Amino acid sequence: MNLNLDFERDIPVLEWESHLATRTSKMKGSAIRELLKLTQQPDLISFAGGLPAPELFPERAVEEACNYVIRNDGKNALQYSSTEGYKPLRKFLADQMHKYGIPVKQENVLLTNGSQQALDLLGKVLIDPGQYVLTGSPTYLGAIQAWNAYQANFHTINLDEEGMVVDEVERAYEKAIEDSGKPPAFIYVLPNFHNPAGTTLPWKRRQKLAEIATKLDLPVVEDDPYGKLRYEGQDVPPICTLIPERTIYLGTFSKTLSPGLRLGWLVCPTSLMTRFVQAKQGCDLHTGTFAQYIINDICQRGLLKPHINNLRTVYKKRRDTMLDALAEFWPEGCSWTRPEGGLFLWARVPTSIDTLKFFNEWALKENVAYVPGVNFYPNKDGGHNAMRLNFSYAPEETIIEGIRRLGTALKKALAQNA
Amino acid sequence: MNLNLDFERDIPVLEWESHLATRTSKMKGSAIRELLKLTQQPDLISFAGGLPAPELFPERAVEEACNYVIRNDGKNALQYSSTEGYKPLRKFLADQMHKYGIPVKQENVLLTNGSQQALDLLGKVLIDPGQYVLTGSPTYLGAIQAWNAYQANFHTINLDEEGMVVDEVERAYEKAIEDSGKPPAFIYVLPNFHNPAGTTLPWKRRQKLAEIATKLDLPVVEDDPYGKLRYEGQDVPPICTLIPERTIYLGTFSKTLSPGLRLGWLVCPTSLMTRFVQAKQGCDLHTGTFAQYIINDICQRGLLKPHINNLRTVYKKRRDTMLDALAEFWPEGCSWTRPEGGLFLWARVPTSIDTLKFFNEWALKENVAYVPGVNFYPNKDGGHNAMRLNFSYAPEETIIEGIRRLGTALKKALAQNA
Repeated sequence: MNLNLDFERDIPVLEWESHLATRTSKMKGSAIRELLKLTQQPDLISFAGGLPAPELFPERAVEEACNYVIRNDGKNALQYSSTEGYKPLRKFLADQMHKYGIPVKQENVLLTNGSQQALDLLGKVLIDPGQYVLTGSPTYLGAIQAWNAYQANFHTINLDEEGMVVDEVERAYEKAIEDSGKPPAFIYVLPNFHNPAGTTLPWKRRQKLAEIATKLDLPVVEDDPYGKLRYEGQDVPPICTLIPERTIYLGTFSKTLSPGLRLGWLVCPTSLMTRFVQAKQGCDLHTGTFAQYIINDICQRGLLKPHINNLRTVYKKRRDTMLDALAEFWPEGCSWTRPEGGLFLWARVPTSIDTLKFFNEWALKENVAYVPGVNFYPNKDGGHNAMRLNFSYAPEETIIEGIRRLGTALKKALAQNA
Repeated sequence: MNLNLDFERDIPVLEWESHLATRTSKMKGSAIRELLKLTQQPDLISFAGGLPAPELFPERAVEEACNYVIRNDGKNALQYSSTEGYKPLRKFLADQMHKYGIPVKQENVLLTNGSQQALDLLGKVLIDPGQYVLTGSPTYLGAIQAWNAYQANFHTINLDEEGMVVDEVERAYEKAIEDSGKPPAFIYVLPNFHNPAGTTLPWKRRQKLAEIATKLDLPVVEDDPYGKLRYEGQDVPPICTLIPERTIYLGTFSKTLSPGLRLGWLVCPTSLMTRFVQAKQGCDLHTGTFAQYIINDICQRGLLKPHINNLRTVYKKRRDTMLDALAEFWPEGCSWTRPEGGLFLWARVPTSIDTLKFFNEWALKENVAYVPGVNFYPNKDGGHNAMRLNFSYAPEETIIEGIRRLGTALKKALAQNA
């Protein structure tokens, strides 16, 4: 064997671009994830990420669950398992949804590697290259990124204080047909505590949307990562209670238990489930067995609900703290949503300030980070004077300090522009 | 709110076929996973799956790692993390590969949700619809399934006792260009203890393949899930020692630690890494943080190597037991590979027997399962008198009994056909 063991030998550099698939040129890195790398300095106050508060992670419950699972069912928990997911946990989730009046059974639930994987599977199973997806604008960036890989186009529908302006859906649908010759793959809706807008779609709009979707024969993707994190007001039932036959509902444990365990789920009619299961087999065979067993143990022991109640108490205080600080420290001409739950609020500054420029020229110097609004517009046609502020991650005193710093910088920038 | 809470109400059934993407019609369920569902009866002896022996899972080490990780770094282990993966573990893997003389750094390693996800990412980043992939035949079914979703076509290269007949590669390459007008996306190689064939590609053939790939400007995918599980003979260095600039190497902890933790890795040149990271972001943001921390802890404590040595001792005995039982119980006219490692051997029966029919008509009645050979042929053009037999899962006495039953059934079937 004449093996070359010289570690420092010159390796030829291959030109890979010509080997890439066409779709690959449509993929982009997540602007937010790149930005989060910038914000790792320890003294920086970050409202940028969508991170749960790490000090609230149920560490003891996870540790106990690990020990219990290994000692009682270790051989199964460490083995290959079914693509659909662990049955007791699928049943638990189906039973939960039953409470909303959704006639969901275990067979309608697919466990995924975070709800991001459900977004990817939606693209894989439903989107043809060049086909349109309808989405609110602003919208969740991770969904856009997932569907860019399937060469989707986007027609957007405006959001107001009550979320998606559903009266605009039909026009967007027609435009998609005009522009691509075929109906859009689906409409993507974030009904509760919208990321990034913080809005919640009222029941009347959900009913209207269900009517329109039925009339147009349009599938609905209902993404609900924050639904359980409500701090005031009444729960609004999901859209899939109205049109279960055409809704694909997405949930996740990332915000309620732990994102690091990477467990989400997808609910859909059984005829479509076969397709998602086939697609997921090709993607990763199945979701991590051990993570499913740990989360199932926590759920079956009844620890999820009290844990969520605790999160709601803490996050509500942080939201209120941020709202108060905004009112106290920010200059006139700014406005923001008052979210009834979730992790984010959406703030607008006077139009003379571009939040992307302001981020680089002012905020980073003040050691505060947020996500500039334009990142949430799939066609980059809005959000220039808006920003997303996360209130779940930082403790209250840090929130006050960060909002104060941003307020000071805003005042200076406005004075300079004037 | 006039919410309909009647669980038993009639839900309209939507016709979903017309909503599916074109690629979705190319997706198929895994024949093996469907077959594994059939073989859940407790008294059935299964040589069908590719399952590690569950009684050898390092349960205590996993439990200790969980406790250590939660107590020492719980807040990070349960949080979102980077798409590329946990740095200490990427470094551990890079250092391991250095031993082979591969100039790999942490930056060249991407942690994936099992190595199946790496196969999916390869399809996403490199395969255009209608483009060809070159693969040995038979080959690993999961790869075919992953790439079917990207509408790949397959040209195959025969295997003999030494694995892929590399002299055929150039012809297959030219055929791909003839049939599709463009070069194949890559060639897929399983060099060590091939699944399903059990063969190992000799160093000379690896050198020849590296020459041909360089001449043709053809990327090479080197899938190596079983490389550490060698029971006799000398390690053969991976193909990526020869052509690191054009090889994408895949590894996994599924066979050496636990498939249920779902952790694999992909090694590639940095210029290509950016693309895989972008693609993975859209797929699932990142691999489970907690699983990465657990496995990293086991690796850093030096527990991986002794564990693998234990696996090698046990699996070698099981392989030898199966080889002896085949020699003792099977009729004349049968043959099988003698794998130097891995989990599988490939057995051939007289051509008068179709192993797919024999499975349903004889093997299941005798309560023994295997995977019929035709399942491993992407174009279904071979393997009709072959079968894959797994020797890692069942204990020795079960292996003897299962091979005996199959031998008896084979003799009966041959007598009936005669």
